[in-house]
This record gives sequence, C-alpha cells and structure tokens, in this order.
Amino acid sequence: MKRVVESHLRVRYAETDAQGVVYYANYLVWFEVARVNYLRALGFDFRSLEQQITVVIAEANCRYLAPARFDDEIAVRAWVEEVRRTSLVFAYAVYNRASGQLLTEGSTVLVFVTLGAQPRPIEIPTALRQALLAEPADGECEEPVVVCKS
Amino acid sequence: MKRVVESHLRVRYAETDAQGVVYYANYLVWFEVARVNYLRALGFDFRSLEQQITVVIAEANCRYLAPARFDDEIAVRAWVEEVRRTSLVFAYAVYNRASGQLLTEGSTVLVFVTLGAQPRPIEIPTALRQALLAEPADGECEEPVVVCKS
Amino acid sequence: MKRVVESHLRVRYAETDAQGVVYYANYLVWFEVARVNYLRALGFDFRSLEQQITVVIAEANCRYLAPARFDDEIAVRAWVEEVRRTSLVFAYAVYNRASGQLLTEGSTVLVFVTLGAQPRPIEIPTALRQALLAEPADGECEEPVVVCKS
Amino acid sequence: MKRVVESHLRVRYAETDAQGVVYYANYLVWFEVARVNYLRALGFDFRSLEQQITVVIAEANCRYLAPARFDDEIAVRAWVEEVRRTSLVFAYAVYNRASGQLLTEGSTVLVFVTLGAQPRPIEIPTALRQALLAEPADGECEEPVVVCKS
Repeated sequence: MKRVVESHLRVRYAETDAQGVVYYANYLVWFEVARVNYLRALGFDFRSLEQQITVVIAEANCRYLAPARFDDEIAVRAWVEEVRRTSLVFAYAVYNRASGQLLTEGSTVLVFVTLGAQPRPIEIPTALRQALLAEPADGECEEPVVVCKS
Repeated sequence: MKRVVESHLRVRYAETDAQGVVYYANYLVWFEVARVNYLRALGFDFRSLEQQITVVIAEANCRYLAPARFDDEIAVRAWVEEVRRTSLVFAYAVYNRASGQLLTEGSTVLVFVTLGAQPRPIEIPTALRQALLAEPADGECEEPVVVCKS
Repeated sequence: MKRVVESHLRVRYAETDAQGVVYYANYLVWFEVARVNYLRALGFDFRSLEQQITVVIAEANCRYLAPARFDDEIAVRAWVEEVRRTSLVFAYAVYNRASGQLLTEGSTVLVFVTLGAQPRPIEIPTALRQALLAEPADGECEEPVVVCKS
Repeated sequence: MKRVVESHLRVRYAETDAQGVVYYANYLVWFEVARVNYLRALGFDFRSLEQQITVVIAEANCRYLAPARFDDEIAVRAWVEEVRRTSLVFAYAVYNRASGQLLTEGSTVLVFVTLGAQPRPIEIPTALRQALLAEPADGECEEPVVVCKS
C-alpha cells in the first residue's frame, strides 16, 4: 500500500508553447513540485537538507499521452517506487482534474550526494529513510494526500 | 477603493538561479498568474476571450527590492491601475508571506487586439469594461480576495 | 554510419538553479534545439511542416552524468536512432566543450500527427523519410556537422 | 559614440507560448544573454566576479512592439546607457534579423553588491569601470560587435 501525494496546479500561460499545449520540458518542473510536496508531506524539510547534503537528479523519464492547455486544472500524483541505499525512485502521474484523463507518466531517480566540488553518493539520511519506509497509517492511503498550493 | 486579488504560490526550484534566488524574469510569470486570477475573480473567462479577440502585452516593468528563495511562500497582489479604451494597466506587488516583506513591484500594459496576421487594437469588451469599472461591493475590498491555487 | 549534427550553445543564467547548475528540465530544451538544428541541416523546414501536419513528443528520457554551469560552452549532438512508420527516435549527447566531458545523454520519441482537435498518427512525410534514410555522403559523418547558432 | 554588442540567437520552441509568439518574460532572458556577451566582449570574466562580489538586478523594463516567432533569427543589441557609482543601466533593442524590424526595447539596472546574507551596494570594480568608460577604439563602434553564439 503506497503513500500517494497529490499536488494541484493550474497551467500557466508561460508553460504553453506555439502548439497551444504545455511544452514537454515543463512536466519535469511539475514533477519537481510534486516531489517537493511529497517530501514535505512526509515531514521532511527540504531546506534543512540542503545545508548538509544535497540531492541530484540522475535520471528523468516522461511519457506523454495527452496534452494540457492553458488554465487547465492539473493534479500531479507522486509516490516513491523504490528506496535504495543512496537513491530514491519517484514516480508521477499527471491528470486533467476536470476530465480525469491521464496526461503524462514519468519517473525520476534522485541521488543523495555530499556537498562540495566532488559530490559523492551518500546514504539517504536515516530519519528520511524511516519515514519513507514506514507503513502508512490506517486509511492514510485510501485517497491521495492533497497538497493544494504549489 | 480598489479591488485587489491576491494569488498564493510557492517558489519552485525551477524558478531559482545560481545566486540561490528567483531569476528576475520569473516575476513576470507570476504577474501573469496574478493577472489571470484577477480576471477570473471578476467572472471573466480568459479562454472564451481568446476565441474572438486576444490580449497582448505592450509593456512590462519590475522593480526588485528583495529576493525570494526556493520553497518560500509568496503572495502576489494584482489590481487594475487604469482602464483605457483599448488597454489596461495592471499593477502588482509581490510579498514573502512569512515575513510580510515586499519583494518586487511591477506593472504591465495589456492591449486588446483583433486576431489574425495584422492585429489591431480593439475596444475592451463591454462586459469586461463594466466589470472592471464596477464599484466593488461593500466590504469586498477591505481585504484582498485570495486565490489559493495558481 | 550515422549522421550527427552538433549544436553549440552557452549556458544562460536563466538555465541555472539554486544548486549553481543547469536545472534538469532545461536539457530537454537543449534537446529540442539540437533536434530542430538536425532537421534543418537535413534541408527540412520545420515551419512549413507545421502548416500541414505536426509533431508531438511521445516520450523523453534523460540521464544526468555531470553538471553544466553558467557560461559553460556546450555541444549537443543529435542523431536519429530509429525511423518508424509514424515516429522517429532521436538520441542526444551533451558535452562540455572545454573539457570534452559527457554531461547528459537522452532520447525523445517524435510522432507525426494530423492537425486538429483529434490528432491521429500519420506517416512521416516521404521527402523527410527519404532524407532521413539516405546514406550520408562520403566523409559527411567523419565529423559531426556543426551548427553554431542556436 | 557608444559601444554596442550584438548577440544572435534563434527562437526556441520552448520560448513560444499558446499565441504562437515568444512569451513576454523571455525577452528578459535574452537581455541577460546580451548583457553577459557585452561584458565578455569588454574583456570581463563574469565568473571571476561572482567569487568576490556579485550583481543583482534592481529594475527591468520592456516595451513590446512586434512579436517574434519560433525559429526566427534574432539580434539583441546591448549597450551601457549610464555608469553610476554602484550600478549600471543597460539598454537593449531586439530585432528580427530577416526583416530588420525592431521587436522590443528594454533596460535593466544592475547593482554591484557584496556577497553574503546582507548584500550592500558596493562600487563598481575599478577595472570594469575603466573598461566601461574607455573611449571605444577608432572604428570599433561603426558597427556593433557581433557575438554569434549565445
């Protein structure tokens, strides 16, 4: 039973392109918004992390199924697919909230690394690992946690 | 007594730059978000407009007073400074919601134009003009209207 | 023997993020620049295409090996990995021009579709297919074609 | 007689919006590209500056006269309008290279500040001030210096 965090946003004009739809790179921006909201919902303060170690993206993948348009209301669901020693795999699904249609699916691999000129992979901080692996509370995952503001 | 619409958003990592602060062009994106929310709060459907006539930006100005950083919660206040025959002047003030600090101030001039290869300025649609000029209802403007999702 | 087109660009401040490196979504923008240059180098006028049929991205993938920083001079190599009936697979490799280091690798799937409200996949235009499949001229591929301006 | 540095770029698909033209905030990105090229043409290494002091934008203004479209070849001319004690005023003019049409005009105010949590304005570094104020060499300004790659 997985924990899913859902972020709501509305398509900005800035995010559209000359085809009248959201430009393909911008879904990776939404994935980032969803990922940050996921970690925050877990009680994780992203800014405190940044002082000691940091995370980098090692891989990003996205499949585009249907377009989003200006002013559409969007839901981005994020969950953790895999917890490894020094990295996490996040998965995402982007929906049009009015129609319920699935628009894109994707994943990213996040690696925890040391700060500095020569970053090296480092173990996921213990508190975060425990929070990620903790069994969701009863009923917590029947519906995604919704994070309104992005 | 002016109508002020306040939009709330959170700084995305994508919006920061190598100085660790929000890149200066991104405030114009936030202005657009605030402007669209303002017009929506007035009962204006931006997408219906786009079918007949359209709006273009003729001018944008921004003064930068203090930086915003990743994950900061931001309020963007928007109001109409001036209603002309074929154009509108919007003004904006961007705040850090935690500290209340004013971060940037700006304005944009929007011109209503005909669609097509040779756009010409055209009068602001009557319904919109009336809505823009209508006296706000009693108490409506004591506090800004808050539009949570952007 | 494949045809490789190399595009040169310099990292913009706008493309960096608070980690001081290029934000991960921006590599997909560079892929687009490289893809457009590839097709132009093949004699393909992207704007003429857009009038009849259009292309959409069905999939994008990126692996991040090393960061790029503000003002770095970058080479993006693009080539066609596979020509299918209605789609093309492009592959990309991004290098730091000063060090020669490989920074990211990626691929995108482009699908040719009809214009209109219900886009359907359509065969790759014959002239383009022939150009894509034509054996590169002698010596053409010993070095990538370099497209300076992006 | 002023020194003008001209940067050439091509409109990226990512820079367009649903109106089929370049999104208004992106001109500020091009201003940054032009400004960095201007300073580099003056022999100024932007990256070395960043280690000691830094520059922030205090103000940005843009007037939009005509749109740019995908794949258009663009020239951005930049020059210094005013050299103050701790700040510089840059001006910009953006042209369509094929038609010669002026598309946008703008300006930004750059302030030199100390690094750290409480940045304070600081005098423009002497070497840079001298380079900015030096009389252009004979013939240098008859035509803008052209910086191809951006």
